[in-house]
Amino acid sequence: MLSNSLNFSGGPGALPMPVLEQTHAALMALPETGLSVLGMSHRSDWFKAVLAEAERNLRTLLRVPDNYSVIFLQGGSSLQFSMIPMNFAAGTTTPAEFVVSGYWSGKAVGEAATIAPARAVWDGAADGYTRLPAFAELARSSDAPFFHYVSNETVEGLQFNDVPQSLGVPLIADMSSDFLSRSVDVGHYAMIYAHAQKNLGPAGVTVALIDNAMLARIPSGLPAMLDYRTHIEHHSNYNTPPVFSIYVLNLVTRWLLHEIGGVDAMQRINAHKAAMLYGALDALSGVAKVHAQPAVRSQMNVAFHFVDRKLDAVCLAAAAAEGFTGLEGHRSLGGLRASIYNAVTVEAVAALCSFLSDFARRHG
Amino acid sequence: MLSNSLNFSGGPGALPMPVLEQTHAALMALPETGLSVLGMSHRSDWFKAVLAEAERNLRTLLRVPDNYSVIFLQGGSSLQFSMIPMNFAAGTTTPAEFVVSGYWSGKAVGEAATIAPARAVWDGAADGYTRLPAFAELARSSDAPFFHYVSNETVEGLQFNDVPQSLGVPLIADMSSDFLSRSVDVGHYAMIYAHAQKNLGPAGVTVALIDNAMLARIPSGLPAMLDYRTHIEHHSNYNTPPVFSIYVLNLVTRWLLHEIGGVDAMQRINAHKAAMLYGALDALSGVAKVHAQPAVRSQMNVAFHFVDRKLDAVCLAAAAAEGFTGLEGHRSLGGLRASIYNAVTVEAVAALCSFLSDFARRHG
Repeated sequence: MLSNSLNFSGGPGALPMPVLEQTHAALMALPETGLSVLGMSHRSDWFKAVLAEAERNLRTLLRVPDNYSVIFLQGGSSLQFSMIPMNFAAGTTTPAEFVVSGYWSGKAVGEAATIAPARAVWDGAADGYTRLPAFAELARSSDAPFFHYVSNETVEGLQFNDVPQSLGVPLIADMSSDFLSRSVDVGHYAMIYAHAQKNLGPAGVTVALIDNAMLARIPSGLPAMLDYRTHIEHHSNYNTPPVFSIYVLNLVTRWLLHEIGGVDAMQRINAHKAAMLYGALDALSGVAKVHAQPAVRSQMNVAFHFVDRKLDAVCLAAAAAEGFTGLEGHRSLGGLRASIYNAVTVEAVAALCSFLSDFARRHG
Repeated sequence: MLSNSLNFSGGPGALPMPVLEQTHAALMALPETGLSVLGMSHRSDWFKAVLAEAERNLRTLLRVPDNYSVIFLQGGSSLQFSMIPMNFAAGTTTPAEFVVSGYWSGKAVGEAATIAPARAVWDGAADGYTRLPAFAELARSSDAPFFHYVSNETVEGLQFNDVPQSLGVPLIADMSSDFLSRSVDVGHYAMIYAHAQKNLGPAGVTVALIDNAMLARIPSGLPAMLDYRTHIEHHSNYNTPPVFSIYVLNLVTRWLLHEIGGVDAMQRINAHKAAMLYGALDALSGVAKVHAQPAVRSQMNVAFHFVDRKLDAVCLAAAAAEGFTGLEGHRSLGGLRASIYNAVTVEAVAALCSFLSDFARRHG
């Protein structure tokens, strides 16, 4: 019997149990209106209050400077890969610069190149995306329209621990898989974005934090839905937004703020969870192997495999029999992956560590 | 106390009660997996089966020809207003042609014009969008890259009852607010699209039926997310789709197929509901007035107001006190609007008729 609390899915990921319980009740009757959340109009006062609170909570959680807009979009990070160059690199001849550190950042530069000049300043393909560069060692241009990187590679389980220098170039970070998992200096970036289905809520909504100084770069004549100004001017309510996903996202921000105590507290819990799981895997050296090099191991996604690759499938089946779910590696990499997003508890990670140690003892 | 069964919202609209109940249960544990629907991966076998069944059910319900693709997109109709000219009017010099019959079709031609030549062949503004043209009377070009219209204007409550001639031009219809409410000859159209939040499910997903012969018109180099071929080739699972919205949409198609008995049966029920409500309003002539001219009254959205406009707000307050909700007119038109989508029952419409008659007797 699979268990919601033992869900290590890479995304859509697990939600905090209190959020799941509130959403369950809201399916039939919201406390505020008595109506199902699924029948609420996006023009209702109720939903306007949800949007306003979600924005306010994100501003509080990440200390977002007042000169930044906070908006909710559709289309996931994949649509951002196109919207970013459409909005911020129109008509440029110097290429936008990208770090290609794994599956997702590779997609980002490929999509940008269909719209504007774009180049990879670093690509980890030769090492099978097991390591990351130090930002200071990159040969970057101070004329690039923007510099883009992915702070955490979900597939390979790599995470940057340093922050790029500005060099006078707008910094844009896809933080889809580690947003709200650790503190970040928002004011250092021109734009940060993250889709919901890791740490924020159900798939179908993407958050963007944008320095309003960037808006002057947007060309005229973009389709309304692909122009960030449309969503900023309409407070993320230009056309019908994904009401349900934003409702759940708001509950998640409440939980993080009031039950966990904020992003710094969450970061301590996440560091503890990651240390437990990597510690358990390192103790199985010779039996199991973590994909990422130690210095760049992600605190969110732990990608690993057994040295005897036949054991990967055996372990997945044994894990499912014990109630664990979502442990399959991404289809591009294989093996196993435990995603330990904000909603995954210390107890769940402890249970996984214990299971993996037992499994290795029986098969190692 | 507002009631889910007396929800006449223009969208996101009410859902069928059996769908609401199944979704409520699935929030904690899907019957198929024992896990919350909100923690399910879009790469799971479970979700692939949901996608496949939703497509199959739509094909059955609308007798979609085999040479049509059925895909699920994000961004609502508003994004389709841009994607359609990007995909099907690239590089053309003859304008795409649009009927402007109300709020939404006006948006469609405006957005298209940012991408390709586009013109309105008819505009109902002079009559305050109270009537519709006969398609046969329109001065159309046989060279247009496509002809676009909105089959039902949600805001004004107007609905086409005839179908445009092809003239060798691909026909594209936005059926967002009457999709699955009545039978349609899909093979007559190059493309039909509809966002979910009227008759299909929660906001956040949009269905498109596309004649595969149209795909040869798509230019190379479009951003992947804005190219229909991407979504067709990946069976609507290119990046993370809105899993929850598609899950509920699938339940709605099951309900329509197995509990209602299909689109023809639904159409008969909808005609009955509309006849009841318009009959009740016509009986209040001199007190209340329907916005649309009789021949083009929508079977989905009944927009009306009181002759004494002060009564609009009085009626809305009295209705809320009796449990009715969602009866406010669109902000662009004011007055009242009762949306009687598929999920609104005959009993709910009867209750509304009775309330309106009583209200008029007390205030008329």
